[in-house]
Amino acid sequence: MRVAVVQQQTGADPETNMARSETGIRAAADQGARLVLLQELHRTPYFCQEESVAHFDLAESVPGPSTERLGTLAAELGVVIVGSLFERRAAGLYHNTAVVLDADGRLAGRYRKMHIPDDPGFYEKFYFTPGDATDANGHSGFTPVDTAVGRLGVLVCWDQWYPEAARLMALAGAGMLLYPTAIGWDREDDPDEQQRQLEAWMTVQRAHGIANGLPVLVANRVGFEPAPGNDGGVDFWGNSFISGAQGEILGRAEEHSEAVLTADLDPGRTETLRRIWPWFRDRRIDAYGDLLKRYRD
Amino acid sequence: MRVAVVQQQTGADPETNMARSETGIRAAADQGARLVLLQELHRTPYFCQEESVAHFDLAESVPGPSTERLGTLAAELGVVIVGSLFERRAAGLYHNTAVVLDADGRLAGRYRKMHIPDDPGFYEKFYFTPGDATDANGHSGFTPVDTAVGRLGVLVCWDQWYPEAARLMALAGAGMLLYPTAIGWDREDDPDEQQRQLEAWMTVQRAHGIANGLPVLVANRVGFEPAPGNDGGVDFWGNSFISGAQGEILGRAEEHSEAVLTADLDPGRTETLRRIWPWFRDRRIDAYGDLLKRYRD
Repeated sequence: MRVAVVQQQTGADPETNMARSETGIRAAADQGARLVLLQELHRTPYFCQEESVAHFDLAESVPGPSTERLGTLAAELGVVIVGSLFERRAAGLYHNTAVVLDADGRLAGRYRKMHIPDDPGFYEKFYFTPGDATDANGHSGFTPVDTAVGRLGVLVCWDQWYPEAARLMALAGAGMLLYPTAIGWDREDDPDEQQRQLEAWMTVQRAHGIANGLPVLVANRVGFEPAPGNDGGVDFWGNSFISGAQGEILGRAEEHSEAVLTADLDPGRTETLRRIWPWFRDRRIDAYGDLLKRYRD
Repeated sequence: MRVAVVQQQTGADPETNMARSETGIRAAADQGARLVLLQELHRTPYFCQEESVAHFDLAESVPGPSTERLGTLAAELGVVIVGSLFERRAAGLYHNTAVVLDADGRLAGRYRKMHIPDDPGFYEKFYFTPGDATDANGHSGFTPVDTAVGRLGVLVCWDQWYPEAARLMALAGAGMLLYPTAIGWDREDDPDEQQRQLEAWMTVQRAHGIANGLPVLVANRVGFEPAPGNDGGVDFWGNSFISGAQGEILGRAEEHSEAVLTADLDPGRTETLRRIWPWFRDRRIDAYGDLLKRYRD
């Protein structure tokens, strides 16, 4: 099964950004992809570089105009689309939400980012409430979404550093892991540090695939986005990639250019691998209780 | 702080194997290492290639002759030694046990392998009872060991595939992760598959370091050990390595030769990294409950 990730530059105008996403999705479908993953918050610039109440105007309801638009395109092309939106759930209650449009255009499900970062230039805790531990439907916040191309373990950006999130998706039957993300370099860091960060980011996500016998799709932003007042900014490092169920790289985008990256996944690979490397058989669930502690002190 | 791992070939005679371990430890100490990690079951051949009750004769008590011998050497050289032994706890009750000899020669602690593999050529479930979820002292089976060079998160081989194990050690304050291991290729596998397996093994362990901001030390066996009756065997792939707290490779041994590998760790790196990438701050312990389930069905 062919899958794709779209890596794009993002500017100030949401309409231009969405049009660019659509161009990418059409290109992926032309190349035979049945699933297309977009990057985190692909409709907007990365507004979290500052804390400003005005940016809440960028949010929208889910379902809403963007899921309708993506759903219409999904139905037209017969592909599953995973998008990433700034969701307004209620006045004063916003989420960083991945949306899954099935191949018939229906909104198959959503995932509200569970781990929210906050560090200089990434002030996400100001904007995004963490996803509920348990949703109104009784499901865990870490619940995959069923689609025409299988059960998708959709997570978002900061989640990518947490083995717990990947494991929970895998234990719920996810057939692959998907990470829309927005990560980049601080230009003040030296090249060695930048390289270690990029390599760490790829390694930890490939490892989630390895530890669960699953392929991984990662869509990252690309290009420099200046901070307000041009006081610094983030150099989004691209390098979107697709890895197989042993963590092997099946495709990787460049760090300075937009890309529509495709790869062919072998649907039987997870079953085969979990027979020779049966991690799930041997998990010590009788001894994992302290994973629910903040710290073991 | 300089640390070392010893990668060695292992034959039928325990005395020869122990002498080889000691030679490696002395070489590491000569190079200034203050901590030396040995590979899994370094005193014996990898006897788990068959199920034979006779092999239980290879086991010994802990403390016992091997911990005394390693302890004497640790005190002489003033180094911390992490060894790996076949432990006889009682008649009919055996463990795959890592032992930690402090720089004064004292047995500082032990770790009984919690996840036990079992697949063709690696019949470990026949020999080793999994470590207790909670030991008699009330501590979790996943408890690090305090030494003169810090708190060591010692795990063993199959544990290396489980992010849960690494996280539990990190949450208990481990300053580094250590994996004595015995992994190799089936010569029947094609070179591409062999390469994917090796790369997956390195990637997942480096990722445990990344996800917890910790350095990782891995000591693997090297060399071919034939199966009984020469019906196959395991080609232990070496590649022992030491990685830093961002998963960067600080040193890596070759795949066909013995090695004493050293690297210098920066003791302040974990603190620095956890400030810029504060994973522990944002763990969703309110939403991780299903990690204690076998499967979310």
